[in-house]
Amino acid sequence: METKKQTRRPKRQQRKKPTSDASSRRIAKRPATHTATYRTLKKSTKDIDAKNPPLRFTPLGGLEEIGQNMSVFEYKDDIFIIDMGLWFGEDATPGIDYVIPNVESLVPKKKNIKGIIITHGHYDHIGAIPHLTTILGGDIPIYAPALAREIIKKRQEEYKNAPKLQIHTVKDGDTIRISDTIHLKVHEIIHTIPDSIALTIHTPVGTMAYCTDLKIDWKKDGTPTGLDAYERMAKEKIHTLFLESTAAEKQGTSLPEEIAHENIEILMKAAEGRVIIGLFASLLNRVAEIIKIAEKLDKKVALSGFSLKTNFNIAQSLGYIKVRKGTIIPLEEISKYKDNQILILSTGAQGEPNASLMKIAHGEHRTVEIKASDTIIFSSSIIPGNEQAIQNLKDDLTRQGARVIQSQHIDVHSSGHGPAGDLKKVIGIIQPQYFVPIHGMYFMRAANVELAKEMGVPKQNSFLIDNGNILDMYADHIDVSDETVASQYVMVDGLGVGDVEEVVLRDRRALAEEGMIVVIATIDRRTGRFLKNPDIISRGFIYLKENKGLIEDMRKRVKLAIQKIPRIQSVETEYIKTLLREQLGQFIFNKTKRRPMILPVIIEV
Amino acid sequence: METKKQTRRPKRQQRKKPTSDASSRRIAKRPATHTATYRTLKKSTKDIDAKNPPLRFTPLGGLEEIGQNMSVFEYKDDIFIIDMGLWFGEDATPGIDYVIPNVESLVPKKKNIKGIIITHGHYDHIGAIPHLTTILGGDIPIYAPALAREIIKKRQEEYKNAPKLQIHTVKDGDTIRISDTIHLKVHEIIHTIPDSIALTIHTPVGTMAYCTDLKIDWKKDGTPTGLDAYERMAKEKIHTLFLESTAAEKQGTSLPEEIAHENIEILMKAAEGRVIIGLFASLLNRVAEIIKIAEKLDKKVALSGFSLKTNFNIAQSLGYIKVRKGTIIPLEEISKYKDNQILILSTGAQGEPNASLMKIAHGEHRTVEIKASDTIIFSSSIIPGNEQAIQNLKDDLTRQGARVIQSQHIDVHSSGHGPAGDLKKVIGIIQPQYFVPIHGMYFMRAANVELAKEMGVPKQNSFLIDNGNILDMYADHIDVSDETVASQYVMVDGLGVGDVEEVVLRDRRALAEEGMIVVIATIDRRTGRFLKNPDIISRGFIYLKENKGLIEDMRKRVKLAIQKIPRIQSVETEYIKTLLREQLGQFIFNKTKRRPMILPVIIEV
Repeated sequence: METKKQTRRPKRQQRKKPTSDASSRRIAKRPATHTATYRTLKKSTKDIDAKNPPLRFTPLGGLEEIGQNMSVFEYKDDIFIIDMGLWFGEDATPGIDYVIPNVESLVPKKKNIKGIIITHGHYDHIGAIPHLTTILGGDIPIYAPALAREIIKKRQEEYKNAPKLQIHTVKDGDTIRISDTIHLKVHEIIHTIPDSIALTIHTPVGTMAYCTDLKIDWKKDGTPTGLDAYERMAKEKIHTLFLESTAAEKQGTSLPEEIAHENIEILMKAAEGRVIIGLFASLLNRVAEIIKIAEKLDKKVALSGFSLKTNFNIAQSLGYIKVRKGTIIPLEEISKYKDNQILILSTGAQGEPNASLMKIAHGEHRTVEIKASDTIIFSSSIIPGNEQAIQNLKDDLTRQGARVIQSQHIDVHSSGHGPAGDLKKVIGIIQPQYFVPIHGMYFMRAANVELAKEMGVPKQNSFLIDNGNILDMYADHIDVSDETVASQYVMVDGLGVGDVEEVVLRDRRALAEEGMIVVIATIDRRTGRFLKNPDIISRGFIYLKENKGLIEDMRKRVKLAIQKIPRIQSVETEYIKTLLREQLGQFIFNKTKRRPMILPVIIEV
Repeated sequence: METKKQTRRPKRQQRKKPTSDASSRRIAKRPATHTATYRTLKKSTKDIDAKNPPLRFTPLGGLEEIGQNMSVFEYKDDIFIIDMGLWFGEDATPGIDYVIPNVESLVPKKKNIKGIIITHGHYDHIGAIPHLTTILGGDIPIYAPALAREIIKKRQEEYKNAPKLQIHTVKDGDTIRISDTIHLKVHEIIHTIPDSIALTIHTPVGTMAYCTDLKIDWKKDGTPTGLDAYERMAKEKIHTLFLESTAAEKQGTSLPEEIAHENIEILMKAAEGRVIIGLFASLLNRVAEIIKIAEKLDKKVALSGFSLKTNFNIAQSLGYIKVRKGTIIPLEEISKYKDNQILILSTGAQGEPNASLMKIAHGEHRTVEIKASDTIIFSSSIIPGNEQAIQNLKDDLTRQGARVIQSQHIDVHSSGHGPAGDLKKVIGIIQPQYFVPIHGMYFMRAANVELAKEMGVPKQNSFLIDNGNILDMYADHIDVSDETVASQYVMVDGLGVGDVEEVVLRDRRALAEEGMIVVIATIDRRTGRFLKNPDIISRGFIYLKENKGLIEDMRKRVKLAIQKIPRIQSVETEYIKTLLREQLGQFIFNKTKRRPMILPVIIEV
């Protein structure tokens, strides 16, 4: 095979570099006109007819990435928000914990926020709550289904400065009143976690359907199940459908869960020794099913991984996971049973460095060590960017003799995001007048627009906008506003929120590529002469201990550069620094074809 | 979707850290005993019976990665080498250009090397030649098929210090004489580049088959073609089959090239405007076929990308690509034709930052700008690690209105590496006594051992070894030697070969994660007192301009740490540095939960 190296391009960050002029963002540069036709008449706020106000939709996250989902709706003075998620970023954001939506535009009108509605308990929909409620206030009512509520509460506790929350539990059929004129209805739908909901938004402008993170559960015979929510939503004429786009590009329909479960059962039966299933802690529907299979096959189940245990306990306490007494055993007791009686559920199927499966693979786990008779099933999709880590994990496990099975080769996982066939089904049932694809990168959303077109929504009725753009939705049309609001990424790194900016990431990327050199020149303030030989320290460049000749040459170069400065000038440290950076940089590039970051330090004594 | 961040784990490098004790490498720690059974009796060189010497096989690359393929065979005093490739490394090797095999063990006996045989012209099989012939000498005869020969010569010219090479052209049916007792026979096989060969190695121990980088070209009706080479090889009893493992884990057989070509033709016919096909410059069989389709549809073809043009010219001059006069037009002339008459072949389907397609997508290309009517076909596999870059590239192209088609969704690419069905076919024809999977990570090779077992090779006759391990092959058995040779990665970075070591990469990774802080304390040599306020410089940590409070706190912390040193001691700079690193590190971690690299500089005046 011919392989190509690609250095991670810091594309997103380049586009997103903080700027006070929000309108200079990408959308201005590259109008997205090919699928969604923007009305030629664009209105800014001042033009809005006060008697006939629009419902304004402003996505603050989730439209340029798979994550940090947050949609803001505003009608007159009332604001409500759907979801507040985080995003783990790209390789181009080294060292960042995660990214959260930018709520700069909401701060001045935070008193208008009447509610935050949460669709389900996944971190890309709830993960920014601790940070954003700290900014916007903990007194805004949150409406969430029971399972999400418990996960939100648990997470909030981890942030000691985050406010206490006012969470109202909602369930299928409930109504959430935002104002005299606006209310939402709750519709339970199928995803990979129990208690996932879609919403209808009832407004004077019309009724909107908001359907994120969904799949259809097809039976093996091709019968779809779980469509009742959409059918109920379709009883009213739907003005606009907001629909997730994650898998819009994928052909076909969701793999029936029945098949995934049957395959897992077959593999569990066939296993000579222990079975270890790696999955996301948040894949609670799968966990519930696997436990049923384990009970059927008379296996004991041990849970490995903190987040998995936490989620399991929450789901069990709410009755979403039902388990016989004695099925769950502590991980410490697995050796009390025969190997073929043991099933271990573990986090870490993405090769995450600190997750349980990685520790097991590396022999660093407290109680579990791989045996040659183990069967390890990865029951999860591969998240783009994790491929190498997963390959390495598989390699480590296989080297220890284990049999590793991945959903790429045997169907042991059905994604929570329905592909084209599922999405078309939903669009076909709801038959909206307008279509706004959400939850996905541009190309995924563009693919979703094509699906809507196939299902009868004309392209000019579909809108491909970006985070920070605004749709003004009227009864008989939708305008894309000229206005945009701030939507630059807010990065969370350690305890800091927003203190890592593009300039810091750029430095991290530069340091990662070629390392850096610190040159310390101690010079006499009066004479400009060197008081000692320049010091040179490098990290991540080349191994200087083995390249002493090069250091000596660099020292000489530094001396030469400074000696060339005419004595008549007073010593100008900034000038000397620039000189050293340029001259030493060129010298090093000529010698090595590398461009380490050069940090000159001038000590005047 | 719930997403998980994973920080790239520097696994490989940790395992590979340079050590003089080669035997301490991974294989010793984790014996691979589950599929390949090592004979209990292990021999070291001194035990070898001089009258009955083994054929020694030492892989120096390609067994722990997809790349840097290099196999060394030794019989008595005669050495021959198959392939000398490079590997582009992992995300865990930031800034590295590529990795080449370690030939430390060959240097003392370089006079014994009788030949280097090249199987085909891909960089993972030829890319290390300039570097390694510089070390081992340019006088070793190289045997290569014509196309590989030209690519090797072209590449060698780019390295002004690399020696001139002695290349002998080989073709199907040729014999390569290594010594009185050893010769090789050349068998042309199918891959994605013309002039790909497999070898039979004829030795006193037995006849070996060496089959790397291959696929079977299935017709649409399920008839395999291109098996004659393997049938010819099987005419002799084969002692050991060395077989590539890249796609061993994948079920099924290769997608028929016919189908890929038909789909490309359908898409090209359906395109309203221009068609741009992104592929590897090395996919020369595909290029040849696409040009045929273009001629059939009366389209003009323009080539974009230096490596593509170079390879095209070589392949055309050797007659591997046949093209009518007038079909190929300069890129500058595409605007002279109607859009639907234009086909552009471009490099960069992996999202490589400097490749032609990326420049086109970013509006930085000299002559090509995306139009909304363009159809862009990615006719290549996704190399693990490139997924995010490809997604971003697709996003950029789609934003400009183009229709993007990828082989994941429509079959427009058939990989050069046959999956399980192809490999089983080859094993079944050759029916070797022993089996050594090559070209692939451990889990891929382990999957290949399972295929060999299905085809009748008992597991104890299969050998899963690593780079630097040695197989002693006798007529009636194979031993895994106790000995190992150096196989630590040799990294090429800019002009340097091997001067970037693990310590440098570790620093780069650390710098990328949390950045760094330089603390400069100027103290009086005699009193240990500060002569000026400590200087603090940071890069990649947080934006200090906006966090002046933190700098002030850090300065105070530095002063405090130094003031606490009892005056009676003489100033010990190393001690002060350690003190600053620890105390400031702890202080910063408490304040920010980050651990930047801290570089204390003590200037004594």
